[in-house]
Amino acid sequence: MAHIHRVKILVLSDAASRGEREDRTGPGLRQLLEGEGWHVVACEILPDVGAGISRRLEAWTDADGCEVIFTAGGTGVGPRDVTPEATRAVCEKEVPGLAEVMRSEGLKKTRLAALSRGTVGVRKGKLIVNLPGSVRGARESVMAILALLRSRLGNLDRVRRVIKTLGMVNCTADFQQQPSVINGFSELFADVFGKDHGVGARSAVGMGSLPGNIATEVE
Amino acid sequence: MAHIHRVKILVLSDAASRGEREDRTGPGLRQLLEGEGWHVVACEILPDVGAGISRRLEAWTDADGCEVIFTAGGTGVGPRDVTPEATRAVCEKEVPGLAEVMRSEGLKKTRLAALSRGTVGVRKGKLIVNLPGSVRGARESVMAILALLRSRLGNLDRVRRVIKTLGMVNCTADFQQQPSVINGFSELFADVFGKDHGVGARSAVGMGSLPGNIATEVE
Amino acid sequence: MAHIHRVKILVLSDAASRGEREDRTGPGLRQLLEGEGWHVVACEILPDVGAGISRRLEAWTDADGCEVIFTAGGTGVGPRDVTPEATRAVCEKEVPGLAEVMRSEGLKKTRLAALSRGTVGVRKGKLIVNLPGSVRGARESVMAILALLRSRLGNLDRVRRVIKTLGMVNCTADFQQQPSVINGFSELFADVFGKDHGVGARSAVGMGSLPGNIATEVE
Repeated sequence: MAHIHRVKILVLSDAASRGEREDRTGPGLRQLLEGEGWHVVACEILPDVGAGISRRLEAWTDADGCEVIFTAGGTGVGPRDVTPEATRAVCEKEVPGLAEVMRSEGLKKTRLAALSRGTVGVRKGKLIVNLPGSVRGARESVMAILALLRSRLGNLDRVRRVIKTLGMVNCTADFQQQPSVINGFSELFADVFGKDHGVGARSAVGMGSLPGNIATEVE
Repeated sequence: MAHIHRVKILVLSDAASRGEREDRTGPGLRQLLEGEGWHVVACEILPDVGAGISRRLEAWTDADGCEVIFTAGGTGVGPRDVTPEATRAVCEKEVPGLAEVMRSEGLKKTRLAALSRGTVGVRKGKLIVNLPGSVRGARESVMAILALLRSRLGNLDRVRRVIKTLGMVNCTADFQQQPSVINGFSELFADVFGKDHGVGARSAVGMGSLPGNIATEVE
Repeated sequence: MAHIHRVKILVLSDAASRGEREDRTGPGLRQLLEGEGWHVVACEILPDVGAGISRRLEAWTDADGCEVIFTAGGTGVGPRDVTPEATRAVCEKEVPGLAEVMRSEGLKKTRLAALSRGTVGVRKGKLIVNLPGSVRGARESVMAILALLRSRLGNLDRVRRVIKTLGMVNCTADFQQQPSVINGFSELFADVFGKDHGVGARSAVGMGSLPGNIATEVE
């Protein structure tokens, strides 16, 4: 059974934060993500104030309560649209490719997608994804990367589970001592990372044959 | 009748600024934009010097004489190509999606489009768009985003006009007091922003139902 | 005969740098590039440490031993993936379009390409290209931009050779004095830059009619 990933949603909207308008984007995202088997552990609304957004993202990534944070809103070109800057300010690294995919998929529906300035970044091992503020835009952006997030996070979970099951802390060393587990790993790796990675020969089965970024996250 | 948008063109070229070469890109852009119904209120040539470019962009965005600035030239990878850096230095926010669209459209014509480093940003509510320096490259890049700029700016103008007509300064409050204007807004919003935004129910018609970035720019 | 371009390869991998794992990406890249007629003058392995990566890139670009540097590895989202940041720290300018092309081509093979954070930049006239660490990912990324690099670098070489042959240092001046060489240049430029650039009329044949970035590199 697949691990249920924990997600937090942060809606940015001056009007909704003051209660002047009902937020439909947060509930819409929750419904979509829960339908995909994710666990939405928080959904909050904040006004479009950069410092406040950054502080919340820091608090959520300092804690260990989720793997992914979706923000919604504040990605446009108006003076109060500061979510990308507030996200960038706290992230250790950016993942431009995910933002590019969301925009290029969005462009198939509406030219306005080119104006979405959302970024994607990583802080303390958690992924922060900026979505547009509209229900439709937010849902379409999530759909554009959901398969990738699902397969990737699912894979990490599977690798983690296998490692824990085998009691492997130092994988490279363990592989040398436990050749009997190699076949299982080979198959797992082949499934997870494709035929080119870590399959076929014994020398290719150690943790070192994982793409570097996966290997370092696994440990 | 559509509002005629005001545009300024800044050509960056050492040779043209010294009069050693005739600039064909500025006139080419002017012809294209005027053919689209835009009003080109300035077209100047500067050498490829970062500080000078930044100062001119600041002066043009400090004033209220245009909605859009197109630069042409200085987007390549040579040592004198400094327009993207000079633009980034003065912009409050970047709009990477517009630059991505210009490059991806350009790639359909020539692989060299991948080397164009042009950025798009916003300062004081004005859009600054970096175009390549060649006549062909500049025209193709403008064409790639013209429909988007036209529809978006046209929409903002329409919203502004309706608001001014109705004498609405605080739109949320006004909506509560003037239910009779709701239908007109619903239709406008539906036309401008699509079916998902602000149409159908009364609660969805207030200014709050505009995508945040539009709403904040409107008032 | 085409000039053979000089390339340096920098593989980033903690495990390979300690000798715990055989590096297959460096040799794979060397084979691919040499098959294309490039000259691989160095291939080194470093651990995933930002400062060390930056120092090596500075040393290689300070020297005049290559036109292009390919890095491989450290582009993912893990805590030890620091190659894009280490590259950005030393580059004078970024070339986002090349990174976008590598990712969009990669996406046709695997969704995981969206997670590659590789950047492309320029320092002291040398191009630095971040590739993923896997053999397959690195090769596919190189293939995505190889034609562009080949045509562009090839073109620059041809222009340089013509200029040297003619003894032209100040091209604009020389053109005015040597109308007899104009035809050759016209053809070269037409071939290199396409029909719109510098072809047909005498006034369009001077160096000024080259796209700015090419002209400045040619000097």
